Amino acid sequence: MWSIEDSQMMSLAIELAQKGMYTTRPNPSVGSVIVKDGEIVGEGYHIRAGGPHAEVYALNMAGDDAKGATAYVTLEPCSHYGRTPPCAKALIEHGVNRVVIAVTDPNPEVSGRGIAMLRDAGIQVDVGLMTTEAMQVNLGFLKRMEKGLPWVTVKLAASLDGKTALSNGVSKWITGPEARSDVQRLRARHCALVTGIETIIADNPSLNVRHSELGSLSNQLAPAEIHQPLRVVLDSQARLKGELSLFQIDSPILLVSTKDYPEEVKATWPAHVEHQIIAAVESRIDLQALLAFLGKTCNSVLIEAGATLAGAFVNQGLTDEIVLYQAMKILGGHGRNLLALDDFETMSDIPRINLIDERKVGKDTRLTLRVSN
Amino acid sequence: MWSIEDSQMMSLAIELAQKGMYTTRPNPSVGSVIVKDGEIVGEGYHIRAGGPHAEVYALNMAGDDAKGATAYVTLEPCSHYGRTPPCAKALIEHGVNRVVIAVTDPNPEVSGRGIAMLRDAGIQVDVGLMTTEAMQVNLGFLKRMEKGLPWVTVKLAASLDGKTALSNGVSKWITGPEARSDVQRLRARHCALVTGIETIIADNPSLNVRHSELGSLSNQLAPAEIHQPLRVVLDSQARLKGELSLFQIDSPILLVSTKDYPEEVKATWPAHVEHQIIAAVESRIDLQALLAFLGKTCNSVLIEAGATLAGAFVNQGLTDEIVLYQAMKILGGHGRNLLALDDFETMSDIPRINLIDERKVGKDTRLTLRVSN
Repeated sequence: MWSIEDSQMMSLAIELAQKGMYTTRPNPSVGSVIVKDGEIVGEGYHIRAGGPHAEVYALNMAGDDAKGATAYVTLEPCSHYGRTPPCAKALIEHGVNRVVIAVTDPNPEVSGRGIAMLRDAGIQVDVGLMTTEAMQVNLGFLKRMEKGLPWVTVKLAASLDGKTALSNGVSKWITGPEARSDVQRLRARHCALVTGIETIIADNPSLNVRHSELGSLSNQLAPAEIHQPLRVVLDSQARLKGELSLFQIDSPILLVSTKDYPEEVKATWPAHVEHQIIAAVESRIDLQALLAFLGKTCNSVLIEAGATLAGAFVNQGLTDEIVLYQAMKILGGHGRNLLALDDFETMSDIPRINLIDERKVGKDTRLTLRVSN
Repeated sequence: MWSIEDSQMMSLAIELAQKGMYTTRPNPSVGSVIVKDGEIVGEGYHIRAGGPHAEVYALNMAGDDAKGATAYVTLEPCSHYGRTPPCAKALIEHGVNRVVIAVTDPNPEVSGRGIAMLRDAGIQVDVGLMTTEAMQVNLGFLKRMEKGLPWVTVKLAASLDGKTALSNGVSKWITGPEARSDVQRLRARHCALVTGIETIIADNPSLNVRHSELGSLSNQLAPAEIHQPLRVVLDSQARLKGELSLFQIDSPILLVSTKDYPEEVKATWPAHVEHQIIAAVESRIDLQALLAFLGKTCNSVLIEAGATLAGAFVNQGLTDEIVLYQAMKILGGHGRNLLALDDFETMSDIPRINLIDERKVGKDTRLTLRVSN
């Protein structure tokens, strides 16, 4: 069913889609390639929500050459009038002959309707080429559309013996500058960062994306193009107060607690701070409810927290992925543990994780692990 | 000074030397290649102590072709009559023209004298090609000759968060069968294994090399060719007694304590058990003294022990290498720690380790780390 050209062109479309992963949210990242008589006549990708979709860039580039051409697109073309007119309509109007789609749209507003609109216009539509590969670009969007929950990644950094700090709390630095720059890139493609009050008290972090620390990405992404992730602080007992580095940076902050803050504390918050009360479970924030709340607007959430909170996301089966930066160091058994999990009785009770990527980042190793819940 | 042919031939000689690493001890592993007019006319490696040296195999294969040839040898040819006649003499008698040597012999009985004997006979001797690479094959022998101490490797196996067992002690199995087979190969090339009484009590291991579990090595090494490592059990308070799996296997065992065992306990030991009293330091066995004792006969020692004993070898600066089998699992903070080390005040106090090799062994990762003491 699929020719070598089909696979090559869809690979290129997926590569194009990946270019949008830092800027399209809450929209999915989509790429498109238009091919006529074996030649690429148009290509494009969705850059940002509200702007043209991938197909529109590719069609505009192709112009009259789109007539009788094949369009490759990583996600089913939309069929509805949103902030832009439907892409299926544009493909029809440009006289495209065939459309190859990697992933059908999980959005109930769109799913299957773009395909139907194309077929009704007499266009050949082939669906399912490189579906798995194309899905990787939009894991967050796809999960949110299907389950109303964001994709959850737990970021960890530890020594080879699984320690995040010496016994006295010293943790600067376990990983090297390249790994810390990689964390900046990781943050830059997430809709929200979640941390706990303990981390705020201990480290007083800014939790923002710093253009100067983006490394290789800084050439691709201008400072103004960075989407600062929503910074979410879990503060179940509403204890947070005082001057915080977090507040100094003018990008959205969401404080989450199980009860209200005193009015005099709230009066000190800058305008970019919002507050949300979430139900408690055993006097802690209900993480499932938190994710449902974030899932209204966020495709992906990065957990950057201590052993207790990060462990809770794993323990409760709420984690999709773990990104572990491992330093080639040994801190010894007195150091601080990576993840607080339940006591397990047998090896079959431990979290089921699968290594999907492993690479060197400076002197450290970055392991990406998929969690089956 | 070195031609491409020189480097190619010495590489081959080093590969040949590696073939002996399971069988030559306490001798070094040595390889030799004899080249005439660009053609290999002889090659060989030392197979076992008491048998012919590498040069003799290579010269016998070359026969008359050795005349006017170049001999590559990974370690300086011996000049003394031991169990075999001196190799330098054999090289001279066969009329070799030039000898290229990677490493000079650290054995005070031999060092430099082989080279002198060759030069005195008018042979061109070039020393120092691929020295670092050739040294890797004989790290234990070289260290023992220089310092009277064996090369010490600490073997560890843990989850990604540095745990060796669940909180209830369950550890079977963290790593997969391929990693456990790799441990068998690791044991097979060590002169001695060291463990602690706690491990014997907890796991009752046999601590032998099992031919059926050698994997790829089982084709290369017949059951009768396996050198069973000396099994050393540290039992500072002389508590060991009763039926032990260790005793069932008829290969040497050394029990080490700081005081004597009761006569009635000693009476139960099979003939292959020996006992050595080593001085105590703070009621524990003096590990430095232990290594000096083992260094009389052992090139290399593999520590297979729990967090306390393995940690002591690292803490006291007695470890040369750490081999860590890392399973792609997370056991959680309640699990058992990998290594008990001192409390460190700053990051500059932690052990200085360098990753020298990293590879997949089944689903696990094996990290080889060199320790600078």
